[in-house]
Amino acid sequence: MKVLVLNCGSSSLKYQLINMENEEVLAIGLAERIGIEDGVVKHTAAGKEKVTIKENMASHKDAIRIVLEALVDANHGAIQSMDEIAAVGHRVVHGGEKFSGSVVITDEVKKALEACSELAPLHNPPNLMGIYACEEILPGIPMVGVFDTAFHQTMPKSSYLYALPYELYEQYKIRRYGFHGTSHKYVANKAAEMLGKPLSDLKIVTCHLGNGASVAAVENGKSVDTSMGFTPLEGLVMGTRCGDMDPAITTFLLEKENLDASGLNNLMNKKSGVLGISGVSSDFRDIETAAAEGNERAQLALDVYYKRVKKYIGAYAAEMGGLDAVVFTAGLGENSKECREEVCRGLEFLGIKIDTEKNNVRGKETVVTTDDSTTKVLLIPTNEELMIARDTLELVK
Amino acid sequence: MKVLVLNCGSSSLKYQLINMENEEVLAIGLAERIGIEDGVVKHTAAGKEKVTIKENMASHKDAIRIVLEALVDANHGAIQSMDEIAAVGHRVVHGGEKFSGSVVITDEVKKALEACSELAPLHNPPNLMGIYACEEILPGIPMVGVFDTAFHQTMPKSSYLYALPYELYEQYKIRRYGFHGTSHKYVANKAAEMLGKPLSDLKIVTCHLGNGASVAAVENGKSVDTSMGFTPLEGLVMGTRCGDMDPAITTFLLEKENLDASGLNNLMNKKSGVLGISGVSSDFRDIETAAAEGNERAQLALDVYYKRVKKYIGAYAAEMGGLDAVVFTAGLGENSKECREEVCRGLEFLGIKIDTEKNNVRGKETVVTTDDSTTKVLLIPTNEELMIARDTLELVK
Repeated sequence: MKVLVLNCGSSSLKYQLINMENEEVLAIGLAERIGIEDGVVKHTAAGKEKVTIKENMASHKDAIRIVLEALVDANHGAIQSMDEIAAVGHRVVHGGEKFSGSVVITDEVKKALEACSELAPLHNPPNLMGIYACEEILPGIPMVGVFDTAFHQTMPKSSYLYALPYELYEQYKIRRYGFHGTSHKYVANKAAEMLGKPLSDLKIVTCHLGNGASVAAVENGKSVDTSMGFTPLEGLVMGTRCGDMDPAITTFLLEKENLDASGLNNLMNKKSGVLGISGVSSDFRDIETAAAEGNERAQLALDVYYKRVKKYIGAYAAEMGGLDAVVFTAGLGENSKECREEVCRGLEFLGIKIDTEKNNVRGKETVVTTDDSTTKVLLIPTNEELMIARDTLELVK
Repeated sequence: MKVLVLNCGSSSLKYQLINMENEEVLAIGLAERIGIEDGVVKHTAAGKEKVTIKENMASHKDAIRIVLEALVDANHGAIQSMDEIAAVGHRVVHGGEKFSGSVVITDEVKKALEACSELAPLHNPPNLMGIYACEEILPGIPMVGVFDTAFHQTMPKSSYLYALPYELYEQYKIRRYGFHGTSHKYVANKAAEMLGKPLSDLKIVTCHLGNGASVAAVENGKSVDTSMGFTPLEGLVMGTRCGDMDPAITTFLLEKENLDASGLNNLMNKKSGVLGISGVSSDFRDIETAAAEGNERAQLALDVYYKRVKKYIGAYAAEMGGLDAVVFTAGLGENSKECREEVCRGLEFLGIKIDTEKNNVRGKETVVTTDDSTTKVLLIPTNEELMIARDTLELVK
């Protein structure tokens, strides 16, 4: 059984075709510049050369058609016929309070997703476009929605409620939702497996440190708190997002900089983060290079970033009443030994002892603490696509 | 030598007259409804009955005149003549980046304080009114300004910088300042004294839990981080303030509720906090009573409140690389054993063991942990007025 996993952004589409008998990736690719000029699809089937298909795509439907053609292409394809695709798994960013797990997509589900779009106006509409496009191009193939928010629906109310007038929660559903749930769930499960302990006995802090970044407190396998909130802006410092800050800064800036809501959102989401502090780049590789060359603001960006992650680890340990493991995943978490080392520096009182030899590694499942470290730190490459494919298989079986 | 300590709010004035030879409070009082109808001054001299003086006060100058008259009154006064007042110590909320300690007030200082008013538009102007009024009524008496922000000026840049465009720090000085510094400093010093250890060897988290509330990380006697930020809105849940929240909620509310900056500020500062969640009151006594009677939202408000404090303790322990003591002070911190117990519940992994017998106490210097608790929890009544008087004495001597 083969599952196609789709992750539709506003002008992009990421995909993987996975053989669920052995969880092997048969093909992987990315369509970019959907709806604008100079469309391009980069496609790689297992064991074959990467191909670049230059073709304009007016819509996600066009993009999916090109992807499907690539998948069955005699030269660079991965399957003989589209009939081999047994199901499609869609990444959906926001499931609101309605979805605490993955679901088979029905008319009712689509209605509920439309309703959630208000909470994720940048993310849910393209996710839905992908769903509608598949319905047309692959009629009759079952589809499953896998939500970024679902894993965090186990949070207690004392974790997800803001100290705002309660009516705002009732009327607009303003609360913490949390994102990257598929990733946090995957790495928490993998950590238990690597430690040889039941997940139900563990207190784990999972750090998903990519371009977007969030931390989750996973107690006995359940998310009990997470740093992203009502939107993916809250929490850690990110590439271009500010994360936590005094909310009164917003009103100060509205007045001083004469901004409106959208200008303010743009500033906090696109011009802040390590880019804002460093003035160098939103890419950590550039910032690490600049810092190594003596750029003080680049070093400052890293210092602020690491400190924020460290504080969340301490906060979540306190919330769970202890700590068995910390997991690092996603771009920076998987690739930067400095990041893992700096974040864990000084956490010996929590039982953490980084082994600098073991920590000198990239993108490979590794326990990076010493054998006598009572709290383990793990590097685990995330695999959201596989999680989506697994949930899809489970639900359509 | 006698020092008069003044704390001027927008329509109020708190005062204490302290004999610095023995640090005894000679008189204490509060003028309310300055600038509006039905002005009233409540005044108590040591060893005498409390008196209530009903008199309208057009300005802080009127209020100070009435207070001074009360202080020298033959019946309910505390001193023979105003000449006995050797100096006046003023609480000043915001000292910006300029003041890292208390200062004798000069023309230059006043100018600098005027400049800081932009950062604290609600607080600094009444503080300044008090200073100007004293100059007129007590000409020639030296005055000292003691800042809420000063103690936190030792924070490293990685603690005080937000992940916003760096230019906003340069242009508007948008950064974390922190408040309640006088209180955090006082209780940290007192904790070292009670523990019989040098402050320079201790990692302490101080929790000032009053109507306004903040937590500070005090490492080796220096504030290295604190929960209030650019303004006193950030951080903990407070009586009517929201504290930390996803900054993107602000832009959502601007649009959905059709608010402007001042409406949004009002919502976050006056209608949120435990009042907003509970719908009951901003006073913890009312909320604890309602919760005990089964009011679920009141209980929820407490749960959210306690969890936030607990998370900050964990975060600051991680930041300092360990924890020797936690101090509770101010209204709730001094008077609610439930608060101290709930906040510390589950922190055994940090070496904290609350002794419920010892913790059953109010407003009295007490170590509330067991003898074998490796991290100590202390109840220390704060005394900002004494700190202001001590700094004043020190500087005018």
